[in-house]
Amino acid sequence: MNSSVVVFTGGVGGAKLALGLERTLPHGSLTIVVNTGDDFDHLGLRICPDIDTALYTLSGLANRELGWGRQDESWHFMETLEALGGDAWFKLGDRDLALHVLRTRALASGQTLSGFTAGVADRLGISARILPATDDRVATEVATDEGTLAFQDYFVRLRCQPIVSSLAYRGAELAAPAPGVLEALSDPNLAMIIIAPSNPYLSIEPILAIPGIRQALLKRSVPAIAVTPVIQGEAVKGPTAKIMSELGVQPSALTVAQHYDGLIDGFLLDTRDARLLGELPMAGATADTLMQTLEDRERVARAALALGHSLNSGTAEKAP
Amino acid sequence: MNSSVVVFTGGVGGAKLALGLERTLPHGSLTIVVNTGDDFDHLGLRICPDIDTALYTLSGLANRELGWGRQDESWHFMETLEALGGDAWFKLGDRDLALHVLRTRALASGQTLSGFTAGVADRLGISARILPATDDRVATEVATDEGTLAFQDYFVRLRCQPIVSSLAYRGAELAAPAPGVLEALSDPNLAMIIIAPSNPYLSIEPILAIPGIRQALLKRSVPAIAVTPVIQGEAVKGPTAKIMSELGVQPSALTVAQHYDGLIDGFLLDTRDARLLGELPMAGATADTLMQTLEDRERVARAALALGHSLNSGTAEKAP
Repeated sequence: MNSSVVVFTGGVGGAKLALGLERTLPHGSLTIVVNTGDDFDHLGLRICPDIDTALYTLSGLANRELGWGRQDESWHFMETLEALGGDAWFKLGDRDLALHVLRTRALASGQTLSGFTAGVADRLGISARILPATDDRVATEVATDEGTLAFQDYFVRLRCQPIVSSLAYRGAELAAPAPGVLEALSDPNLAMIIIAPSNPYLSIEPILAIPGIRQALLKRSVPAIAVTPVIQGEAVKGPTAKIMSELGVQPSALTVAQHYDGLIDGFLLDTRDARLLGELPMAGATADTLMQTLEDRERVARAALALGHSLNSGTAEKAP
Repeated sequence: MNSSVVVFTGGVGGAKLALGLERTLPHGSLTIVVNTGDDFDHLGLRICPDIDTALYTLSGLANRELGWGRQDESWHFMETLEALGGDAWFKLGDRDLALHVLRTRALASGQTLSGFTAGVADRLGISARILPATDDRVATEVATDEGTLAFQDYFVRLRCQPIVSSLAYRGAELAAPAPGVLEALSDPNLAMIIIAPSNPYLSIEPILAIPGIRQALLKRSVPAIAVTPVIQGEAVKGPTAKIMSELGVQPSALTVAQHYDGLIDGFLLDTRDARLLGELPMAGATADTLMQTLEDRERVARAALALGHSLNSGTAEKAP
């Protein structure tokens, strides 16, 4: 049986599933394709929040209290920066900063984001492959009632308060998948593709907006499934439900499944939304998808893998 | 009586005298012209060690135990950087880093080093004017038995161990004095110019190698004096004596005075070198020039000011 898995992910929620998958799958069989639409330049540094979340989560260095950044973090840089009049709305911990400084320098000297990320993952002892969706620049832009905002302006500085009218992924049309992404998607040993329970619009769409990746997903020869980021009409974390309302769609798991229609073959609903099973435009299954403990992550990973394998062997429940 | 004073300085030793002068002189009458030959790009950051030492010393933020950097410093950035394989030979504290990040960004966006420095000094509540010698790039290069080395390679990475054969100040010939430097040197209220007890070759010469500054000093209309960085043939701090030997000159205060001949009118020897008074090619005086306590700094400042004022009023002891 094929054992390789590719997971598409954004930040925290997606990284939790990726960790669950990594702990469940055979060593070295997981490829994590990470959103780069949140990446931005700040204080002269290149910051890639979702890649860093993946690196920290997979290496066990993630800050569990904060839900972002590194564990055992200190904030002396930030305190001093603020005292000197610098922008303090995006918090950079003293330890976290090392990654941004090294990356900025590596990119300035011609290294690729994927090459740099692989080097760090290796140093942190991560066996999963962590790939940025692209080495090209893709920037998520949020059109709102307060004007068009760069993603982090909207997400962090303004705390998602502006009303979203549309989203754009600048650069995505011309972006090439990072080296390794298409290879992973066409690997003869690939068992399935999983879309993590990340925000479909802010975290997954910047990946799917890259033509080469979208094409590969449309032409997939293995099952693709998605894990719901919405439970009972509420996002587990972040502004997914708020954005869905503002974009004029029903904030529900069903809407997310419909959004992915054509790109996936199965959808993992939360048990609390089991009543939606019959309405899915693709095969479905249910699980308790809340991930608080490490055991939760492994449980959701196993449920996602089971759904994918069931589609491989033709046993999945097909929606009418 | 004129009350303004310009002091030329390098790092730690010079900043100590500058602090003593600041505490002795009327508020707002001190201009500190700082060496920029040590400045370099490291980890993608623009680092100006002597300017930072001046900023930290004058604002009371200097780290007294280390003798460099900021007080209450932490090293989490550096530890993490090293763990990730980054260059760790130049130590950057978490708090100190804020200044480098802000400066790098300010310079990249077109601000001048002098403009940025003035803004920081203002924010730190420093009333003395801290001016880089120039806004242009000047880089001290050290020709050694291990080849030609960038200053910090020689000074920090190789800990001054290579044998020096000569020094060059790249860019100095074409560098313009920073805004304010020539104005301070021609201020009608100027009482004197003081060369701090910094390394004459590594710290003061990169300032004096800037033609506009050298010319202004040669054409001075007020007394210029220097405070000895050498006591009984030994440098108070750093490799001054070692470098003098390697450059083929006698490591003594007299050699330093001769080195400044034509540029200064008085030389403040340490009391332990009083026997050299008669050999100086300019007026001289003696004082205990060791600066350990704050009182020491004020004492040396008063002695330097007294020597300068005595030259103004024609009462200095002129060497035969």
